[in-house]
Amino acid sequence: MYRTHNNGELRLKDVNEEVTLSGWVQKIRDKGFMVWVDLRDRYGITQLIFDEERTDKKTLELAKTLGREFVIQVTGKVIERQSKNTAIPTGEIEILVDKLTVLNESQTPPFTIEDNTDGGEDIRMKYRYLDIRRNPVRENLIFRHKVSMEVRNYLSKEGFIDVETPYLIKSTPEGARDFVVPSRMNQGQFYALPQSPQTFKQLLMVGGMDKYFQIVKCFRDEDLRADRQPEFTQIDCEMAFVEQEDILNTFEGLTRHLLKEINGVEVAKFPRMTYDYAMKTYGNDKPDIRFDMKFGELNDVAKHKDFKVFNEAELVVGIAVPQGNKFSRKEIDKLIKWMQRPQIGAKGMVYVRVNEDGTYKSSVDKFYDQEDLAKWAEKTNAKPGDLICVLSGNANETRTQLSALRMELAERLGLRNPKEFAPLWVVDFPLLEWDEETKRYHAMHHPFTSPKPEDMNLLQSNPGKVRANAYDMVLNGNEIGGGSIRIHDRKTQEMMFDLLGFTKEEAEAQFGFLMNAFQYGAPPHGGLAFGLDRLVSILGGQETIRDFIAFPKNNSGRDVMIDAPAPIDEEQLKELCLKTDC
Amino acid sequence: MYRTHNNGELRLKDVNEEVTLSGWVQKIRDKGFMVWVDLRDRYGITQLIFDEERTDKKTLELAKTLGREFVIQVTGKVIERQSKNTAIPTGEIEILVDKLTVLNESQTPPFTIEDNTDGGEDIRMKYRYLDIRRNPVRENLIFRHKVSMEVRNYLSKEGFIDVETPYLIKSTPEGARDFVVPSRMNQGQFYALPQSPQTFKQLLMVGGMDKYFQIVKCFRDEDLRADRQPEFTQIDCEMAFVEQEDILNTFEGLTRHLLKEINGVEVAKFPRMTYDYAMKTYGNDKPDIRFDMKFGELNDVAKHKDFKVFNEAELVVGIAVPQGNKFSRKEIDKLIKWMQRPQIGAKGMVYVRVNEDGTYKSSVDKFYDQEDLAKWAEKTNAKPGDLICVLSGNANETRTQLSALRMELAERLGLRNPKEFAPLWVVDFPLLEWDEETKRYHAMHHPFTSPKPEDMNLLQSNPGKVRANAYDMVLNGNEIGGGSIRIHDRKTQEMMFDLLGFTKEEAEAQFGFLMNAFQYGAPPHGGLAFGLDRLVSILGGQETIRDFIAFPKNNSGRDVMIDAPAPIDEEQLKELCLKTDC
Repeated sequence: MYRTHNNGELRLKDVNEEVTLSGWVQKIRDKGFMVWVDLRDRYGITQLIFDEERTDKKTLELAKTLGREFVIQVTGKVIERQSKNTAIPTGEIEILVDKLTVLNESQTPPFTIEDNTDGGEDIRMKYRYLDIRRNPVRENLIFRHKVSMEVRNYLSKEGFIDVETPYLIKSTPEGARDFVVPSRMNQGQFYALPQSPQTFKQLLMVGGMDKYFQIVKCFRDEDLRADRQPEFTQIDCEMAFVEQEDILNTFEGLTRHLLKEINGVEVAKFPRMTYDYAMKTYGNDKPDIRFDMKFGELNDVAKHKDFKVFNEAELVVGIAVPQGNKFSRKEIDKLIKWMQRPQIGAKGMVYVRVNEDGTYKSSVDKFYDQEDLAKWAEKTNAKPGDLICVLSGNANETRTQLSALRMELAERLGLRNPKEFAPLWVVDFPLLEWDEETKRYHAMHHPFTSPKPEDMNLLQSNPGKVRANAYDMVLNGNEIGGGSIRIHDRKTQEMMFDLLGFTKEEAEAQFGFLMNAFQYGAPPHGGLAFGLDRLVSILGGQETIRDFIAFPKNNSGRDVMIDAPAPIDEEQLKELCLKTDC
Repeated sequence: MYRTHNNGELRLKDVNEEVTLSGWVQKIRDKGFMVWVDLRDRYGITQLIFDEERTDKKTLELAKTLGREFVIQVTGKVIERQSKNTAIPTGEIEILVDKLTVLNESQTPPFTIEDNTDGGEDIRMKYRYLDIRRNPVRENLIFRHKVSMEVRNYLSKEGFIDVETPYLIKSTPEGARDFVVPSRMNQGQFYALPQSPQTFKQLLMVGGMDKYFQIVKCFRDEDLRADRQPEFTQIDCEMAFVEQEDILNTFEGLTRHLLKEINGVEVAKFPRMTYDYAMKTYGNDKPDIRFDMKFGELNDVAKHKDFKVFNEAELVVGIAVPQGNKFSRKEIDKLIKWMQRPQIGAKGMVYVRVNEDGTYKSSVDKFYDQEDLAKWAEKTNAKPGDLICVLSGNANETRTQLSALRMELAERLGLRNPKEFAPLWVVDFPLLEWDEETKRYHAMHHPFTSPKPEDMNLLQSNPGKVRANAYDMVLNGNEIGGGSIRIHDRKTQEMMFDLLGFTKEEAEAQFGFLMNAFQYGAPPHGGLAFGLDRLVSILGGQETIRDFIAFPKNNSGRDVMIDAPAPIDEEQLKELCLKTDC
């Protein structure tokens, strides 16, 4: 037996007990006549002591040869420490070592195994197994485990059944790009890895499973933006005989449960806002509502003067930055430059200082008087001491730019407190979005989303105006989940594929099995999927999903630790009837 | 809201309550003036009643138009049934329907949605979503869910952390054939889907995760034998600072817990037997010990007469079939023919009837007398009324043949009771097996399995004799789990790759990351993986894993429901730099 206890559990009450411990050498202090070793494992650190008087010479000498990250086993007696360390739970005791065995040596690790390491991202990824030894990384993974377990147990108690759906499925050109898997037994044919188990969970509803969930890997072969992974994990759920309201309540319940159990935070009923409202008020469909800075539209009160920029703009819109008047001219100029970078692309920014005495000083005083500016302040809800930032131009672009500014300022002003949680629902998403490039409609959510019954009449005449029974759950400015009520009859589904530009033959070839299923008594159904990586990172008070994935891939989709992907044998290619052809 | 209750929960105490139910039409009885409908959902069946006196005409007429598997919603009053049905929990009440809405119609399903369906395997797989509506299939999937949940909660309570390992990894020619995934971002390179998370779980141990588990899909591109799936699910586990004994105890605990919680069966401490003993006594390494029929080796008592067949055989071995003397001559001849089929390949079979009076009558009475046969009876533990079946020839082949006979007879004699559970451990597997075809050693378990320390000295001189710290858990004649203590130092791992015929360069290219990891303080570790599909099916009292998989593939690796695999667009191939070349 390698150990009687782990390194986190011994206390004063265990004094005089004979114990065996195993673990890694975290730290060695060698005073010559005395050696202390901090022994580490997943559960904590226990101090070992070797000394001239009480330890036999050979053991003391061996202790002096230990290096960082050596794996050792010791047997000894628990004794009370002379100088106690109140910072760790085992800090009142130490082990007077009798017997020391080196189980495995270690080369000097390429970075320090400490909470704050000297290792950069690249080297940490290459030696991820060493990175995982560090407390923050390990704790993140354990945190993820806790979240998954809570999710599973909550949903299981609510009657959801965990059903495993297949990973080797069929490629469909709709949506993102699939990863494909050549079939050797069916030569010239390919499986695809699922982007989500969407059609399968719908078929489970047709199959009467009633409530389904799965924590499942999904795959998308996309050019990777920062913090996207080619494989990611979804909490995938579906329910039959439900309306949107049932689904919102169920998953609001789950999220509230997680916030309470995992974070100890009680949240009130989630606010709901329409997609239109979110876009107009926050400039995006996943607003961070931990702070205010709502958009004030200024067209009515800014287009009556000689200021051409505003007069020619589709939209003039501003936000009041709390206590922003303390920004220096230089800081504001820098902010404007930041807004003008190509990533954001604002042409310029008008600002209004709201003085403590209620007067205004703006960058457009030439055009606007105090009375005008007072109206701007009213529309943006600005208070004395604030700074009003105003953008103008094409409505959509301007909103996106102002949203970026709002988030950046909130970050700088410390308004994005990771310990505060502000969930909400965004509802009434458009069913379709027009793609200028391909000159056709795309499904905003996916082709299985049902139009709102009251908008069905617009489906042929004005498809862009049709709203969907689709909803997103937003937490702290991130979309953590989204779903919809699905189409469950063949006719509507056919109409949808038609709108999306599928020929009848294409629709049949790709989704015939689903449309057939709808002819055999498909119940009304709907569902939702959470992005687990994102959810866990936000609950964990961080925004980088990579920190919550054991073995993430880099931005080129590579696992630099195992060096994958990699070339394969000619023999393997031959068996698959494939040739590389670049 | 589609329903106030499900179809399994209303009872006498609910009489007079106004309820809304939704579900599928299971059955309609139309008496003209009265219509009964059995309404079905996942939770049960509730009887609806429509009649001339109490139901309005339009609703009654609509009820008469319902067909099997229509999806309907009804509102009505719970009333007490006149003729109660004690076979179902809702059998004391029925719903007097006020309002009937057809939510979706159904074509006549291609097979009956009944416990015993008229649908064959192929049509059931094509319409799997309808098959899942059948109680036995749905109950199997719910059973699987329960087992998974028990496994997760048990392991989590024992301190195991569920860590998700990557699905897009690197292909290694060792072991079974990989499914590969071409990379678009790294052209000409491929990921592989994991055959198991083996190296990753070992790296988690190097990373100090201490105890890991995951219920995870694994992939093998093998020619499919019956009841094998290209994608299958493992309960994958690993522990650090453990010896074999720790692992056996931990997972014996898990299995005992499952048998108790899921099956209500308490089992004693699992017997353990060595691989050698199992091969000699049962002719295979996963013996079904619910019944006896242990092998009796007869070389000593069968090679002293003039019977050339036995005298020339490496091994003469028999089993006593309980009450087998009741088999007729014709039945025995059929059995011999069954043994001579190419799948088994026995040349012939000698048999001895043990009469009730203790005398013997054998097919080789020409050569052996009563005294000889008494010795055979003793060796095979035969009792009056039994039949001794004796095979001979090459030792390995003969054992395999006799094992097949043992299992077949047990099946015929009803000795394989699916409600009885007889788990055991098989230990001390050989480290290597010699492959005649390639003239080299293969790892019996996998290349990361550690040799027994006491056999290390044989590693160079007599590798075939080296035993491994490897173990299988066997349940009712099926290997349900297997694992090993791993190698955790670079030197032994290098030696192993060398024995397996890897060049230094090959070993480095494929497993360099793991051997490197071993140089940075790898702890002793080991683990085990259960085949979840198999485990669930055995706990469920069945032997076909397909019945416990929601969407299984057929023997050609096809999903006949969605029709995958399938050809993909030329465009997709081009992006991947691939050409089909058959």
